[in-house]
Amino acid sequence: MSSSVSPLAPKTVPDMPVIAGVRLATAEAGIRYKNRTDVLLAVMDKGTAVAGVFTKSKCPSAPVEWCRAKLKGGKARALVVNSGNANAFTGKTGRSSTALTAKIAAKAVGCSESEIFLASTGVIGEPLDATKFDGVLGRLAETAEPGDYLAAAKAIMTTDTFPKVATATVKLGKAKVTINGMAKGAGMIAPDMATMLSFVFTDAPIAPAALQALLKSGVEDTFNAVTIDGDTSTSDTLLAFATGAAAEHGAPKISRASDPRLKAFVKAFNQVLANLAEQVARDGEGARKLVEITVEGAKTKASARKIAMSIANSPLVKTAIAGEDANWGRVVMAVGKAGEPADRDKLSISFNGIRVARSGARDPDYDEAQVSEAMKAPEIAIKVSLGLGKGRDRVMTCDLTKEYVAINGDYRS
Amino acid sequence: MSSSVSPLAPKTVPDMPVIAGVRLATAEAGIRYKNRTDVLLAVMDKGTAVAGVFTKSKCPSAPVEWCRAKLKGGKARALVVNSGNANAFTGKTGRSSTALTAKIAAKAVGCSESEIFLASTGVIGEPLDATKFDGVLGRLAETAEPGDYLAAAKAIMTTDTFPKVATATVKLGKAKVTINGMAKGAGMIAPDMATMLSFVFTDAPIAPAALQALLKSGVEDTFNAVTIDGDTSTSDTLLAFATGAAAEHGAPKISRASDPRLKAFVKAFNQVLANLAEQVARDGEGARKLVEITVEGAKTKASARKIAMSIANSPLVKTAIAGEDANWGRVVMAVGKAGEPADRDKLSISFNGIRVARSGARDPDYDEAQVSEAMKAPEIAIKVSLGLGKGRDRVMTCDLTKEYVAINGDYRS
Repeated sequence: MSSSVSPLAPKTVPDMPVIAGVRLATAEAGIRYKNRTDVLLAVMDKGTAVAGVFTKSKCPSAPVEWCRAKLKGGKARALVVNSGNANAFTGKTGRSSTALTAKIAAKAVGCSESEIFLASTGVIGEPLDATKFDGVLGRLAETAEPGDYLAAAKAIMTTDTFPKVATATVKLGKAKVTINGMAKGAGMIAPDMATMLSFVFTDAPIAPAALQALLKSGVEDTFNAVTIDGDTSTSDTLLAFATGAAAEHGAPKISRASDPRLKAFVKAFNQVLANLAEQVARDGEGARKLVEITVEGAKTKASARKIAMSIANSPLVKTAIAGEDANWGRVVMAVGKAGEPADRDKLSISFNGIRVARSGARDPDYDEAQVSEAMKAPEIAIKVSLGLGKGRDRVMTCDLTKEYVAINGDYRS
Repeated sequence: MSSSVSPLAPKTVPDMPVIAGVRLATAEAGIRYKNRTDVLLAVMDKGTAVAGVFTKSKCPSAPVEWCRAKLKGGKARALVVNSGNANAFTGKTGRSSTALTAKIAAKAVGCSESEIFLASTGVIGEPLDATKFDGVLGRLAETAEPGDYLAAAKAIMTTDTFPKVATATVKLGKAKVTINGMAKGAGMIAPDMATMLSFVFTDAPIAPAALQALLKSGVEDTFNAVTIDGDTSTSDTLLAFATGAAAEHGAPKISRASDPRLKAFVKAFNQVLANLAEQVARDGEGARKLVEITVEGAKTKASARKIAMSIANSPLVKTAIAGEDANWGRVVMAVGKAGEPADRDKLSISFNGIRVARSGARDPDYDEAQVSEAMKAPEIAIKVSLGLGKGRDRVMTCDLTKEYVAINGDYRS
C-alpha cells in the first residue's frame, strides 16, 4: 500500500447499510502482506443470483477462468477474494489453487463448489498457496456478519491509497432496496501487475439473466469508460450479487432487464458503478488530476468513445495535464490518431469551459492567463466538439506524473 | 534542443557522400529558434522522381496536405523544410502559408510550384509567417552545394539530441548508386508536438511509381515498426527523391519496383530506412534504453505486429524496463490485451536471451541475479514466443522514464 492517500480521494466515505442476505468477514491470511487483512469472505443466502463481467485479456488469470465457468449456474453462495497474489500466469498450479480454494470455501459455507466465486489480486507469476485458506475460511464463515463493507474494501486493496465503497437506496415496486459496492483500483503492486476488482451486492430479487444484462449494460459507461494507462489486467473482475431478500418486504421479482419497474433501480445501480469507477480513476498511480474527456459532435457514440479513449490514453496529453498545460495541440494529435471521422477545420476544444481552439485553429479570443489558472484545478474537463454529427461520449482518466513512473519503474524487489 | 545527447546515440557518424543531382543549403530564418539553422533547402535536378508516405492522422498539417496533392505529379525540384513551427492546426492561414512558401521556393529555384515539396516541424497551432522565407530561399538556391547532409540534418532538428543521417552505396546494374537519408525524431518541442520527418535521396534512376512502391514497402518494417509513446504526429512525413543522375554512368532506368535488377538496391534502401528509424528510437524523449521486441510463433505476421506494438506501447512494460526490471508479468498483460490469438499456457518470454517464463508460468530454471544483471544493458531485447504458428515480427521502442514526463509535462512557456 502506498503511504500517502491520493489528493483526489473523496472527502467523505458513505455509511454503508446492511444488505439482507449478505454477511462479510475479513482476515489476515499472510498471503503476502504483514499486519493487514488480505482475505475477504462474503457469504450469501441461498438463492442469490450472480452476474459477472471480466477482463477481455486473452491471457486471463485462473480465478477469472473459474468465475466464467461457474457463472453459467447463475447462483452464488460465497465470494472469496485475496490480495497479495493474483494467481495469474501460474499455469496448471493456478488452476489447482482455484479448485482447492473453492473446495475449502464450499466446505466452510456448506454449499456446492459451483456456487463459489473467486478473485485474486497482487503479484502475478507466483503460485498461490491455497492451503493458507484452510481453517481461515472456516473461521470466517462462522464469524461473518451483515456488515462492514469498508473493512471488506480495505482487505482487497493492493497499492490503492484509499478503500472504495459506494451505496444507493432506491424503490423497487413499493419496497426499498439497497445496492452496495466496493472496488479496488488499477493500482500496481510492486513488483507486478495488480488489477481492478469490484463487487456489488443488492437485496433486490433479480434473476441471473436479468442481472447479467444490467451489469453488461451498466459497465459500458462506467468501468469501461475509465482508463488509467491503457493497460489491461489479466484479472479484471466485476461481480454482482442479488440476494432477493427484499422480496420478503414486497419487492417484485424481476426476471427481465427490460422490466419497466426496474427503471429507478437501473439508474441507482449505474450510479454505484459510476461512483466506484470514478474512485478508481481518482486513485490512479501517481495521479494528481482527475480528467474527464467529453467528445461531442462525432458521427456515432462509438466513434466518440474511440476518440475520447485516444485522448485519455495519450501519454502526451496526460503529461501536459500533469504540467498544468492546456495543450490543445496534443488533443488535436490524439483526435487525429484515433482513425475516426474528424475534420480538422471543424474542431473545437475547451479546457474547464474555456475554449482554446475552434474551426481548426487557435481561438483568437482565449486568454492564456485565464487558462493557466484554470489548469491548476484538481479536476480537468476537456471537451472536444467535432461538428460532424450527434455522437457523444465521456471517459475518465488521470494525469501521467513522474510518480507514476517511479511507482511502476522501481527496481524489482 | 535538449542540452545533453542521448546515451543511446550512435558512437560514430558516417561520412555522407555527395549525390549527383542534389544540392543542399541551410540558413537561420529565425522562425522560432535563435542562433541556429532552421531552414533547409534541397534543390534537385530536373527529372527527379519523388515518392512519399505521410501520417495517417485524420488531422494532418497543411504541409502534409500540400505534399499529398503534389505527389501526383511524381516530379520534384525542391524540398523546403523548416523547424520551429509545424504549421499544423492553423486553419486557412496554414494553407496560405504553404502556398506562399511554395511560390517563393518555385521562384528561387526556377520551377513550377507543383514541383516543390514542403515539411514543417515544431510548435503547432501558431501561424507560420512564410514571408520570412522571402529572400532566404533565393539566397539558399544560389548557394546550395552538393552537400553537407549532416548540416541539413541539424537544421531540421527540434528536441532531437543528435542529428540523424545514414548512407549506403550499392550496385544498380553495373553502376554504383548512392542512397543518403536524414531524419529527425519523434521528439517534443516545448510546448507543443513535433514530428518525425525523414528525407532520402538517391541518384538511382527510378520512376515515381516504382519509387513509391519501394517506399511504401520499405517503411513497413522500419519507420512503421518504431514507436516512442504510441502517439502520432499530425506532420509525419517521409519523402524519397531519385535524381536519376546515375543513368549517366550506366545505371539502368527502373520503371517497376519488381524489377529483379533492383534487388540489392532495395536491400540497401531498406537498411537506410531501418538505420534512420532506429536512430529515432534511440533519441526518444528521455530514453535510456533501446528496446527491441520480437514476437514469434504468432498466427500471422500482422498478429505478431499487433502484439509487439501492444508490448512496445505499454506504459507498464516501458516503466519496468526503465527500472531495469525483467517484469514478464507485464509482458503477459500486454500480450493479453492485444486481442490477438494467444494461449497463455504456450507462452514463453525472454529478456536479452534469458528465458524467464515458459508454458504459462515462471521458468523454474531462471536465475534472478543473472536477469537483473542483463537488464542493466542499454539495449534490451524482449522475445515472446506464442507457440501458435509461424507469424513473426519485430518492433523497436525505448523505455519510459521520469525524464519523458519532465520533458513533456513542463509548464507551457
